[in-house]
Amino acid sequence: MVSPASVQPGRHRRFELLTLGDELLLGLTANSHLTFIGGQLARRGVSLQRNVTVTDDAAVIARQFAESWAAADIVITTGGLGPTCDDRTREAIAEILGQKLVFDPAIQKAIADRFVRLGRKMTDNNLKQAYRFERSEVLFNANGTAPGLWVEQDGRILCMLPGPPNELHPMFVDQVLPRLSARGLLANREAYIQVRTVGVGESMLETKLQPIFDRHGDALSVAFCAHQAQVDCRLSSPSDRLDPVQLEQIARECASVLGEDFLCFGHDSLAKVTADHLRSQEKLLAVAETTTGGLLANCFTEVTGAAKFFAGGCVCCSNESIMQLLDVPECLLAQHSTVSAENAVAMATGAAERLGADYALAVSGTCGPCCGGGSENPIGTIYLALYSPLGVWSKKMSYPGPRATVKVRAVNAAIDWLRRELIRSSRNVAVRSGQTANQ
Amino acid sequence: MVSPASVQPGRHRRFELLTLGDELLLGLTANSHLTFIGGQLARRGVSLQRNVTVTDDAAVIARQFAESWAAADIVITTGGLGPTCDDRTREAIAEILGQKLVFDPAIQKAIADRFVRLGRKMTDNNLKQAYRFERSEVLFNANGTAPGLWVEQDGRILCMLPGPPNELHPMFVDQVLPRLSARGLLANREAYIQVRTVGVGESMLETKLQPIFDRHGDALSVAFCAHQAQVDCRLSSPSDRLDPVQLEQIARECASVLGEDFLCFGHDSLAKVTADHLRSQEKLLAVAETTTGGLLANCFTEVTGAAKFFAGGCVCCSNESIMQLLDVPECLLAQHSTVSAENAVAMATGAAERLGADYALAVSGTCGPCCGGGSENPIGTIYLALYSPLGVWSKKMSYPGPRATVKVRAVNAAIDWLRRELIRSSRNVAVRSGQTANQ
Repeated sequence: MVSPASVQPGRHRRFELLTLGDELLLGLTANSHLTFIGGQLARRGVSLQRNVTVTDDAAVIARQFAESWAAADIVITTGGLGPTCDDRTREAIAEILGQKLVFDPAIQKAIADRFVRLGRKMTDNNLKQAYRFERSEVLFNANGTAPGLWVEQDGRILCMLPGPPNELHPMFVDQVLPRLSARGLLANREAYIQVRTVGVGESMLETKLQPIFDRHGDALSVAFCAHQAQVDCRLSSPSDRLDPVQLEQIARECASVLGEDFLCFGHDSLAKVTADHLRSQEKLLAVAETTTGGLLANCFTEVTGAAKFFAGGCVCCSNESIMQLLDVPECLLAQHSTVSAENAVAMATGAAERLGADYALAVSGTCGPCCGGGSENPIGTIYLALYSPLGVWSKKMSYPGPRATVKVRAVNAAIDWLRRELIRSSRNVAVRSGQTANQ
Repeated sequence: MVSPASVQPGRHRRFELLTLGDELLLGLTANSHLTFIGGQLARRGVSLQRNVTVTDDAAVIARQFAESWAAADIVITTGGLGPTCDDRTREAIAEILGQKLVFDPAIQKAIADRFVRLGRKMTDNNLKQAYRFERSEVLFNANGTAPGLWVEQDGRILCMLPGPPNELHPMFVDQVLPRLSARGLLANREAYIQVRTVGVGESMLETKLQPIFDRHGDALSVAFCAHQAQVDCRLSSPSDRLDPVQLEQIARECASVLGEDFLCFGHDSLAKVTADHLRSQEKLLAVAETTTGGLLANCFTEVTGAAKFFAGGCVCCSNESIMQLLDVPECLLAQHSTVSAENAVAMATGAAERLGADYALAVSGTCGPCCGGGSENPIGTIYLALYSPLGVWSKKMSYPGPRATVKVRAVNAAIDWLRRELIRSSRNVAVRSGQTANQ
């Protein structure tokens, strides 16, 4: 658990994000910069006040920048720095700043070196990227040609970042956050302790935790953030009336009251936490899915080092594939259909046995695309199965909503079921070996 | 192919989108409303001029709305209509509009009916949603309690939509687009013909198609949109100097020049087009993947009716799972490792044979998480294999970039390879049966 920062000086400064790009407004690309930068600032105790997306047109960018620059203390821009971008963008912003553009040989050298390293030929338009505002710092770009730019002027900050996420993300974390922190504009570490929960609604969570919160009155600030299957509870203390040790103690109390509904402190995903349980117990997992079409396997393979705990998975879109990959008998499918508790159990068992896994999850249901709904099993009916060293069980779930939602909810429910089972099994091992249960 | 609309009257009107929600600025939720609404408007010939995201605070919303309302002709808002939302938002916007809020019994009835239908109890705060501006139309919400609101005033339009995507999407398509179209603010059907291409860069595409474009001069307007593996080429005619039949003819010429690089007219995905080839040839596909961890299977299972062409897939994170699920011999893995042409070929063959499929794709590589890089196979090395009725081949690819990018590029390359193979096989069948090749 990370202790929250002792100061939150950026609280009253206004941060605006200006995302540039026709591709965002035309709906071709999701605005991932908002999600990333908004999330990063929030973790340091700063709330982004506004995000404005405008077209690539230089006059439009200049007009919007002028407005944001007048209203905000810190303006962050993304995009518009590439070699094919309109020249006039830099010029227009330079004019608003009252600065000249100057050619920087150090930038030119970095760009040229990059082309040599990649064995490619540099084109003339890349040299545009070697211009910077006369009073600005250059943010080195380890993954592309366009450097970022950092301007401090009239008590305000302008930070211009390149558009490609693999260039922007490390630049923001390694160069922008430390600079903002050094100037006291955001906390120098996590600004709150996050108690992440799963499988419990926001109002129920509040009810369960309120007695703990009540003991601390105004000294404790609590914010709830609900997303997908999770609700995060963020604890901080206005004006540091509680010290980090006290906040950590409160977070531990919350976790203890929540029991298995407590997922983790911080930002780990449900799959990551579940994977950690598997790894620490040295257990191997397999999955089998129809309805969720590969999404369940993908959640686990997204965790770094998945080979250590994840044997593999089968995606089945036909009775034949269920029989061939998972050894489910034809007579079982004929008698019960694929959308049944019996089949889910047989799929989980087949996956575990075929792949030599200790645990297996199976998901079968009617959100399509493989199996249609029927009178017995309306759309949104999902059967989950969990195979473990102690036995195999199934569960029937019913999710309303569009297909994408049903898939995500089914995957989260399956993973959370396994997580809870792993907690119980570790507790049992501890009890059997004479230790006190301690999780 | 859909003919483009004959009028594009909304071209010079200013559309702004105002997305409301702390969860967007805190980075908890992606701004999918921008992607959806921006894309929908673009298809009708209108470019969204600006998107502004602000916090849920009523005063902030009011200030931003006043600014947008003064600057734009059409303002669309999303979010801020739910039962738990701040009351003052509606009041603040009503004040800017100079309208009173009135209680609408018809909305109340629709909300009450919905609760009865779902067998749930209506709470008092749901009644807040029954208030509307005195001079406004109600947009019926088939999937939730919050109705949308439509205001026309002083030559401008305000359209307020609920936040949940499954409520917003049908409301926008079924009620908002027809209203905007009826008022001449956007085209009454697709505003351009889209020639979707795959596997060819934007500049190469332009070079190939320029001779066609040149013959039509200013009468033809061309816009390129690059995203992921695709580049879309959007053809329209300013002031209708070319009629829809002529534009369609030009699009067909482009497709013909592009050959296999042509994917489709319109907006279908690469997986959808490939699935259509499989379906029309009555062929069955199987997949096997390590590196891409289920993403390849998920692309195909996202296509409606996947069971008709997709047998299933195997996600393998260990040598054991490759041997167990795909019948790859242990000695092959020992001699060549999982990241090899030999293994990719064996995985594809195993998937096809095990699942009784006509075609199979396999992806194995080093973008992690299963297999680390080595001196022989640096990170980003991917082996693809394609099994077909005519034989089995492998291909080595090398993708720089972060893991998520490598995964997407590998999946797209695999699917596109299959698509090209299916085009050739259908051509061969046509030739063999004495017909003229025609695709």
